[in-house]
Amino acid sequence: MIEMIDLKDYLKGIESVETVYGQKAKEREDRLTKPRGSLGRLEELAIEIASMKREAIPRINRKVIFTFAGDHGVVAEGVSAFPQEVTPQMVYNFINNGAAINVLARQAGADIVIADLGVAADLNIDHPNFRDRKINRGTGNFTNGPAMTREEAVKSISAGIEIFEEEHRKGKIDLVGTGEMGIGNTTPAAAILAVISGENIENIVGRGTGIDDDGLIRKISAIKRGIECNQPDKNDGIDILQKVGGYEIGGLVGVILGAARNRVPVLIDGFISTSAALLARLLNPVSVQYMLASHLSDERGHGKMLEILNKKPILDLGMRLGEGTGAALAMHIVEAAVRILNEMATFESAGVSSKE
Amino acid sequence: MIEMIDLKDYLKGIESVETVYGQKAKEREDRLTKPRGSLGRLEELAIEIASMKREAIPRINRKVIFTFAGDHGVVAEGVSAFPQEVTPQMVYNFINNGAAINVLARQAGADIVIADLGVAADLNIDHPNFRDRKINRGTGNFTNGPAMTREEAVKSISAGIEIFEEEHRKGKIDLVGTGEMGIGNTTPAAAILAVISGENIENIVGRGTGIDDDGLIRKISAIKRGIECNQPDKNDGIDILQKVGGYEIGGLVGVILGAARNRVPVLIDGFISTSAALLARLLNPVSVQYMLASHLSDERGHGKMLEILNKKPILDLGMRLGEGTGAALAMHIVEAAVRILNEMATFESAGVSSKE
Repeated sequence: MIEMIDLKDYLKGIESVETVYGQKAKEREDRLTKPRGSLGRLEELAIEIASMKREAIPRINRKVIFTFAGDHGVVAEGVSAFPQEVTPQMVYNFINNGAAINVLARQAGADIVIADLGVAADLNIDHPNFRDRKINRGTGNFTNGPAMTREEAVKSISAGIEIFEEEHRKGKIDLVGTGEMGIGNTTPAAAILAVISGENIENIVGRGTGIDDDGLIRKISAIKRGIECNQPDKNDGIDILQKVGGYEIGGLVGVILGAARNRVPVLIDGFISTSAALLARLLNPVSVQYMLASHLSDERGHGKMLEILNKKPILDLGMRLGEGTGAALAMHIVEAAVRILNEMATFESAGVSSKE
Repeated sequence: MIEMIDLKDYLKGIESVETVYGQKAKEREDRLTKPRGSLGRLEELAIEIASMKREAIPRINRKVIFTFAGDHGVVAEGVSAFPQEVTPQMVYNFINNGAAINVLARQAGADIVIADLGVAADLNIDHPNFRDRKINRGTGNFTNGPAMTREEAVKSISAGIEIFEEEHRKGKIDLVGTGEMGIGNTTPAAAILAVISGENIENIVGRGTGIDDDGLIRKISAIKRGIECNQPDKNDGIDILQKVGGYEIGGLVGVILGAARNRVPVLIDGFISTSAALLARLLNPVSVQYMLASHLSDERGHGKMLEILNKKPILDLGMRLGEGTGAALAMHIVEAAVRILNEMATFESAGVSSKE
């Protein structure tokens, strides 16, 4: 287990992308049989990935989606439309291949790693895709104290790093997606955004899985009380995670940092995953260079998150499911970008005349 | 060859979608292990496709992209950044698997059918994916007369229908994409839009493959003169095609009508493909029910086209290449929608509690 001191060391190992490789990718793109720039975002993505991976013509072989689960004490405030028992039920659904992320990861040719970071139930799962890294049985209710201890916050991040590193050792990962499951977790995600952005809470809180008007009022109130009671330091990612975050969110911070450290592009999923990205940015702003925004979630406040990260979403399909579903879909687009760079003919090789 | 009289008969055979199947698909979606509606556009797409295919749980097995080539007499007016010889060169590139559409169709698992509808060069191609349906060696320059005869316009549409029907007979097609190649063909596409929309030509003409400011002025002038000289009837799709269209555009009108007639969803690609969709709509407005807008092209005026068709693009990636590249990319999203419907567990089957 990585301790606080080691985490600081680990963070120092994250290096800036090398744009010289992106430049080489662009030079090749300009020689391919199409008008320059005519593949728009696909061309930009290939350039970014070349810079991240430090390869002029990168390839994407192994793709992995990390879907982490955790529970939230704040559900006691009536902030979610679904009961807490759904968190473990959905973990079993992931293991049995019945969830949306299973379908979409299979289509994308991506492996899935499911991990329990803090589900409030005993899971009895022995499966190659499952990692038991339970830190606690759900967070504390942050309306009357911190969600977790500072030690637990660090532990959740290091668990994520370790899960990523272990998987990357097993087989080099070329593209990562983040995902999560945790009843109530749009509430901590919105709280994280509220602390970091300083926005009015009413403007950035959405309906999550579909809470009604009364629930929305309770949710806004819970976030306000949580921030008031805990006073998180908006410049300290670990402090925010500890006071109003969640274990699965901390785990995803670790996955994002692990990807950045290993120069692997990471597709950030929706509202909760992006709250983890905001925390990763506070821990080391260089990590943002390895992030790709997979989609614009339908959850209110997600646009604000992407604005802070200065990321343009690849897809905009009105989705708000989480689990990594947006990341899985965006993998097709990222892979298309890289395939274009690898597989298209040049004007010279195809004997096609270029622009007059 | 289908004559005018037969085309009228063929058009009568296009039947409305059956929304009762979409309703059944929606009922199933609402029982799947996710909050209702949380997969946004994916859920809508699966519903639309169920209605088109008249199956409550449709599947997508065979996907085909039809990429049609043709040349344009109007290039004599200096409206394109590339020389006309690029049209046949790119057809050879398609056959040799070097073009963007080859890469993206392969990734999407789609077959490609390339056809010569009116390339201004002799092509000597014997390849299973190639169809020689040349109607003429390029259209006439529409600034001083019609692009083609009315007979040729009908012939190009019937050729598209026949190519589609032949392919559909070989193996049932579940999802179609349209695509094209033809130096100068954003000019006829913009002319078609100008006639149908009545918009100011300056507002809907773009730079195509990347023409400079002077070229843009020439292009606008050519379209103005073409419309003035030919006076196309804005309610007669064949008249518009004849006077300011192109052979490959007519062929794509045929593919779209063929798809609609056979209840096969058709992903309309970018600016030129959508001009064909506008003509198909004039020939039979019911055909619009089978169209899906794959993406929003970066070519100016495409948004206006989608507005007329009342279609929301699936992707928005700043692309403007044509060939069917947007359609190929959108196939992943459409397939995801249908897979979700087929493969996800229900709340009952997975033992997951539903909303409180």
